[in-house]
Amino acid sequence: MISISLPRLTSRINALARFGGLPGGGVTRSCWSPPHEEARAWLVGELRAAGLEAWVDPAGNIFGSTGSRTLRPETPVVLTGSHIDTVPEGGILDGARPLVVAAWSDEEGRYGSLFGSRAFCGLLDGARIDEMAAVDGVRLVDAMARAGFEARHAPEARGPAGAVTAYVELHIEQGARLEEAGIPIGVVETIVGVRRSRVVFVGQADHAGTTPMDRRRDAFLAAADYALRVREHVVTRGSATSVTNFGVVRVHPGASNIVPGRAELVHEMRDPEVAVLERLADECAALARQVAGAHRVGVEVQLMSATTPAPCSPRVQAVIEKVCATLGLPSRRLYSAAGHDAQNLAHVTDAGMIFIPSQGGRSHRVDEMSDWQAIERGANALLHTLLVLADATA
Amino acid sequence: MISISLPRLTSRINALARFGGLPGGGVTRSCWSPPHEEARAWLVGELRAAGLEAWVDPAGNIFGSTGSRTLRPETPVVLTGSHIDTVPEGGILDGARPLVVAAWSDEEGRYGSLFGSRAFCGLLDGARIDEMAAVDGVRLVDAMARAGFEARHAPEARGPAGAVTAYVELHIEQGARLEEAGIPIGVVETIVGVRRSRVVFVGQADHAGTTPMDRRRDAFLAAADYALRVREHVVTRGSATSVTNFGVVRVHPGASNIVPGRAELVHEMRDPEVAVLERLADECAALARQVAGAHRVGVEVQLMSATTPAPCSPRVQAVIEKVCATLGLPSRRLYSAAGHDAQNLAHVTDAGMIFIPSQGGRSHRVDEMSDWQAIERGANALLHTLLVLADATA
Repeated sequence: MISISLPRLTSRINALARFGGLPGGGVTRSCWSPPHEEARAWLVGELRAAGLEAWVDPAGNIFGSTGSRTLRPETPVVLTGSHIDTVPEGGILDGARPLVVAAWSDEEGRYGSLFGSRAFCGLLDGARIDEMAAVDGVRLVDAMARAGFEARHAPEARGPAGAVTAYVELHIEQGARLEEAGIPIGVVETIVGVRRSRVVFVGQADHAGTTPMDRRRDAFLAAADYALRVREHVVTRGSATSVTNFGVVRVHPGASNIVPGRAELVHEMRDPEVAVLERLADECAALARQVAGAHRVGVEVQLMSATTPAPCSPRVQAVIEKVCATLGLPSRRLYSAAGHDAQNLAHVTDAGMIFIPSQGGRSHRVDEMSDWQAIERGANALLHTLLVLADATA
Repeated sequence: MISISLPRLTSRINALARFGGLPGGGVTRSCWSPPHEEARAWLVGELRAAGLEAWVDPAGNIFGSTGSRTLRPETPVVLTGSHIDTVPEGGILDGARPLVVAAWSDEEGRYGSLFGSRAFCGLLDGARIDEMAAVDGVRLVDAMARAGFEARHAPEARGPAGAVTAYVELHIEQGARLEEAGIPIGVVETIVGVRRSRVVFVGQADHAGTTPMDRRRDAFLAAADYALRVREHVVTRGSATSVTNFGVVRVHPGASNIVPGRAELVHEMRDPEVAVLERLADECAALARQVAGAHRVGVEVQLMSATTPAPCSPRVQAVIEKVCATLGLPSRRLYSAAGHDAQNLAHVTDAGMIFIPSQGGRSHRVDEMSDWQAIERGANALLHTLLVLADATA
């Protein structure tokens, strides 16, 4: 039976890890950045060296095909893929693909959540491209231009309807459920929805020595209060699977002797149930107004992005489970607590995901890792799932 | 009687306001930055055009003298001055001098609190210059080098002992006490002490979707909790004049889908009583450890700077009051809730300060302002105070 070569797989993952590699371990490889563009060039070379037809689409997605470079409904393909961009200070396995056919651009959402697969699946709103920007203010059009792309052409990356018959993505779990259960393969049933909002508190910048405490309208203290209350609210009033985070915090004007006049939070919430997510969003918006009132500041909540939870294809789940049984690999169904390109592909084809355990459940940090044996098992599960799907649709 | 020309004063203040001026009003003119260095060149030109001997010392302080450029104890001078640097997005009157003799560099403490006057008064620790840096990480040595200065030579700016017989500084109150009392002139008795600490919470960066809420070690939530508790503590347990602020907040790695692994606050506290300030500092350090324990994160408190409250000279206060009586200007004694270069000069000479009302008590914001008539009154009080002091010591 055909199987994955672990030494070859290991050497490719380690080669990719060098692009944007940090001295103390881990990687920072943001989409469109120089390390990412170097990795893109390397990957295209690897695909060609493997005898595949390789190309890059207008959204920056990288493809390798055993057939022609034209995707068409007359000869639908079985697609697999993931991404090669990382979060800042991420781990080397985030998005590293044991068997790459597509590498979707900006999965991590530096300029827009799951950008490349959204473009491929026709879910990218061309009218919003001009206003898309990273949290540090750098605009997508400028970042893409520096990398040699024209952002306004990204919607042209849309794949023809019916050209993909199935999509399977292999990924690390990024959580601790598989490791703690001692199960080598996870079969994803649903991918959580993610809501991201920018919550801006506007108070009054004043001298931090001469303004009496009771006259201050401190935007940062309002933001701090909001963050603590939201955490408490989501833990006590959300579902058992609801999570929330404030990963981006900006305080203006940012001098030690000035009372903060403006504080900006990026507030993220996730849940596998759309109803839960929407209820929490409404409750948090009310909480923001209540906290702002108590601190005598203003508040504005701007929705940045919202993905709805995406169910995976029962057909693909069944194939993965059957393949795992044949390979002697115990598997378990679970939901994905992270967003993935597969949720966009689920809109246009039968999509599924295979998870392998993450060491200690660690993710989005430089010591994020999986055992090489776990990677090998996952790659073999993916390989045979693809072969079965390709056979079934041939 | 000689008096200030308001049109000339107005036109000079407005000319200075153009350096680093913001489109919507206000100024950002940080020490050593290009707008500051352009303002420096302009000021030296103005001093020379006024017939003064003008020079810049190794700490970047600007001087103008009616006599020679050599300060010596045989012919001690009466000194006045303030500063031309501003906080980010400050008002145009912060540090603008109606009658300039010295313009002290980096009063706002971008790289080190009251840097220029510390150097002049021999209070600058040369051994620490290499490690001095702004909150954004830019080092003083680099900022000064770009402006054409050698930071390691700054201690050479120290003035000879006995060369200054008195120092008087005119400043806006930056608070609301004079305006609310309807008093045009404040005579400063004491300048508050200011303690600045960097408080760093270290948790664990993790995936913001897949890490269960109860396993997170979120450094930002710990910092938020600390800031809210410190405010409450200072308000309930400090003196009636104690104030505190968190004006600088940095969260790392700063991505919406990563739990913050590190959060850094610059914590400032002020009080006119040194004993109160030291007690609050000890209590806040204990609070930081308690909050860190509750959030299962680490914490480190690094003292950045600490000035002790500085009493002004009774002789100078008496002269200011006598001059105001002669000019028909009601005056009131008060403490300064902001730090000023005068607190360094108080170590080496008889130092005093004259305050004028700030509109609405606003300060360190772009709409910080005083009435032009208030400015004229303050400038005349300064002029005649200097003349009396110069007469008395002639």
